[in-house]
Amino acid sequence: MSRPAHELNTGLTAALDTLAARRTESLAELLEFASIPSVSAQSQHAPDMLRAANWLMARLRQCAGLNVELWPTEGHPAVYAEWLGQEGAPTILVYGHYDVQPPEPLDRWNTLPFSPTVIGDRVYGRGVSDDKGPLLIAVQVADAYLSATGGLPVNVKFLFEGEEEVGSAHLPALVAEKAERLRADFVLSADGGMWSAETPSLTVSARGLAALEFTVRGPAKDLHSGRHGGSLQNPLHAISQLVASLHSPDGRVAVEGFYDGVTERTPDERAATARLPFSDEAYLAQTGAPGTFGEAGFGTLERQWDRPTLELNGLWGGYTGEGSKTVLPSEAHAKVTCRLVPGQTPARIPGMIEAHLRRHLPPGVTLEVRPSDHSASAYHIPADHLGRRVAREVLEQVYGTPPLEVGMGGSIPVLETFQQVLGIDTVFFSFAVGDEDIHAPNEFFRIPRIAEGHQAWARYLARLAEHHE
Amino acid sequence: MSRPAHELNTGLTAALDTLAARRTESLAELLEFASIPSVSAQSQHAPDMLRAANWLMARLRQCAGLNVELWPTEGHPAVYAEWLGQEGAPTILVYGHYDVQPPEPLDRWNTLPFSPTVIGDRVYGRGVSDDKGPLLIAVQVADAYLSATGGLPVNVKFLFEGEEEVGSAHLPALVAEKAERLRADFVLSADGGMWSAETPSLTVSARGLAALEFTVRGPAKDLHSGRHGGSLQNPLHAISQLVASLHSPDGRVAVEGFYDGVTERTPDERAATARLPFSDEAYLAQTGAPGTFGEAGFGTLERQWDRPTLELNGLWGGYTGEGSKTVLPSEAHAKVTCRLVPGQTPARIPGMIEAHLRRHLPPGVTLEVRPSDHSASAYHIPADHLGRRVAREVLEQVYGTPPLEVGMGGSIPVLETFQQVLGIDTVFFSFAVGDEDIHAPNEFFRIPRIAEGHQAWARYLARLAEHHE
Repeated sequence: MSRPAHELNTGLTAALDTLAARRTESLAELLEFASIPSVSAQSQHAPDMLRAANWLMARLRQCAGLNVELWPTEGHPAVYAEWLGQEGAPTILVYGHYDVQPPEPLDRWNTLPFSPTVIGDRVYGRGVSDDKGPLLIAVQVADAYLSATGGLPVNVKFLFEGEEEVGSAHLPALVAEKAERLRADFVLSADGGMWSAETPSLTVSARGLAALEFTVRGPAKDLHSGRHGGSLQNPLHAISQLVASLHSPDGRVAVEGFYDGVTERTPDERAATARLPFSDEAYLAQTGAPGTFGEAGFGTLERQWDRPTLELNGLWGGYTGEGSKTVLPSEAHAKVTCRLVPGQTPARIPGMIEAHLRRHLPPGVTLEVRPSDHSASAYHIPADHLGRRVAREVLEQVYGTPPLEVGMGGSIPVLETFQQVLGIDTVFFSFAVGDEDIHAPNEFFRIPRIAEGHQAWARYLARLAEHHE
Repeated sequence: MSRPAHELNTGLTAALDTLAARRTESLAELLEFASIPSVSAQSQHAPDMLRAANWLMARLRQCAGLNVELWPTEGHPAVYAEWLGQEGAPTILVYGHYDVQPPEPLDRWNTLPFSPTVIGDRVYGRGVSDDKGPLLIAVQVADAYLSATGGLPVNVKFLFEGEEEVGSAHLPALVAEKAERLRADFVLSADGGMWSAETPSLTVSARGLAALEFTVRGPAKDLHSGRHGGSLQNPLHAISQLVASLHSPDGRVAVEGFYDGVTERTPDERAATARLPFSDEAYLAQTGAPGTFGEAGFGTLERQWDRPTLELNGLWGGYTGEGSKTVLPSEAHAKVTCRLVPGQTPARIPGMIEAHLRRHLPPGVTLEVRPSDHSASAYHIPADHLGRRVAREVLEQVYGTPPLEVGMGGSIPVLETFQQVLGIDTVFFSFAVGDEDIHAPNEFFRIPRIAEGHQAWARYLARLAEHHE
């Protein structure tokens, strides 16, 4: 069963009209959703995670005809919804997440992170860009179709998880358990980020991830640095030596075996990246960094998309408060994540780093390494994939210019889950922009993107139905 | 005017009887004093600093005949008291401090730091050993003499400051301003620490101090480490390289000029240190460290007393909370203190370190260095000093064995002030023991030391009066 194009176009027009009439309430919904501090990493926010899941289910239940379910996991639950009324039409699985990053450091926020605040054409708050704003756009488009036309142009399943910011640890088991329910032609992801607010873009690759934490221990308790200093190894000195040993002066990762399997890109691929509208000067102005720095022999975009990295995300020990405390601390700690590219195996990376740390451990301290289950393989979507082609067409329609096809420095662990468990690819279709300070203080979302996102998602569903005919 | 020995002995006996009768209330006074969180380093405790000063003044005013004054400074005030009724007899200046170290990390305490708790023959609480317990001993001895005999064997001035734990920044100005009032033959310090609970000891040297903090800055704000990682210098990597550069692998400080002026000790001096009853095995068992580590070519005690050091006291940046946060942080911070020996000039050290840091600064970050006014010269008291000889005699009387003469790894900045402004030496006469976890969680004071301290201070005053005859 399929519907003629004029009927689809009528449906699209009705949906777009409905969305236009609901613009104010669409923003109001985001303000309400983002006021729930659904921080998956912090156990004190467990009740808020449930509140957010319940809020999202209630919103989905407003969409006439959607079947909504809460899917528990061993961690935070996922929210699922489906509409399967177009027998024979394609089925897409819309992915997003309702959890957010921790808001710390709180003193760097200009507004309260969980009191979403509109300033000009932006809304500020933790999670507005990653991923509550983009996620709601997809829901609102489905609601508009359902209320205006009584159905959707294609079959749609929604899967919104609550653990993306902590590595989606329980999603693989959930997807495996629900594989039959989740069957789809491909995933359309409401998570991700566009290149810029002015130019549409399609993300066609993402780096993988591996993570670990380690602790260096010296004396059994904190000691007076005057009395004991100079006669015992200071864990802060030892951890600094370890961290410094992880990179060569030329910016390469110094861990043995780290680059094994990494394939060099072709001269054509490198040239395509070099043609993208990007300047180091503008990038430095945007980030406020005094200069670029990275692996010798590569440009900034290649360093972000195509080369693996090892980054410290946290390093701490001793007295960090106001004033001075003459302490020789008992412990020092580090958090590490690596971004990986095709050819690297995430599960092998923590072991390589541990071996390096043990080889370089200074005398007088012990080392504990804790590998994380936060892990993802690198990803690349084929150029001729239907979902990618539809996205290209729709973005050109909405913006009047073909999208740039770009890489992604970050990782979305679920890409690998969908590929391995369901055997399907993922198309990024998020209306977040990469400069919206996600994972940092003062995260924001551009309010005009809501209308653009409505246009694009509504057209995507209609166009996908046409392609199928 | 001087008094015959039998009269002094009568006075000593009466004072000792009084102290013995007051033993329980002496401990109760310490519990009350140590319950005031007089943390000089933390501005939220400014009201508690005043409470502690007022408590101390009230206690001194209980001593019949003491003249008590509050001496304001630009920081926390000092408490002063004097009894000058023995014209022609020696005058001693008793020094101590009523401020304490910050109690952090709080989760490592077994009892509340400001709810002093008696367990067996110890009292646990911040400041009980450093310096409220030892300070109160001196006050209680003066009180006993005054109430039992109506006077003291020698003239006594008390100076208790409130900024010792933050470097005594305002004491030099105060001592200069009050130089006439503070005139004395020498300082008898109730601050310091004995070698062990079993063997009496006299501290005859102390290391000096220099301090600084520094901050490494990269991007203007925290960035997503997935998107940006690998293309900008990570301040955590940069600060680790800087900290690692400060020492050579053989444990020496690698800062150019750091050892300038340091004189090697003679073979006799080194042999005397080697004869002291000390074993690395026992030291490691006490501290729980997996091994000793320090400057090559020196033993543990020499590394602690006679060699200069550079120690990190705090190092931090990025996400340090529960779980993971994939952040490339904007800043990283370090707190540094150096312990110095005779021949080094504290004021020159921060500049040398800053020059080293600037020379070793990795690309892509900026550096800010903040020298501290926390500073002290190294100290050594002459072997034939009257105050040192009296201390030796009294400790042998009380303990039945001559005291060991030892060095001190830590610093007491006021030693330099008393030497330079008043021209007098300082004799350490504290009944704290070096293993009482001062500056660390679970600081404690041995309750039997109160009675021993009473004996020793009472005899010290009597013996000093005799020596003068």
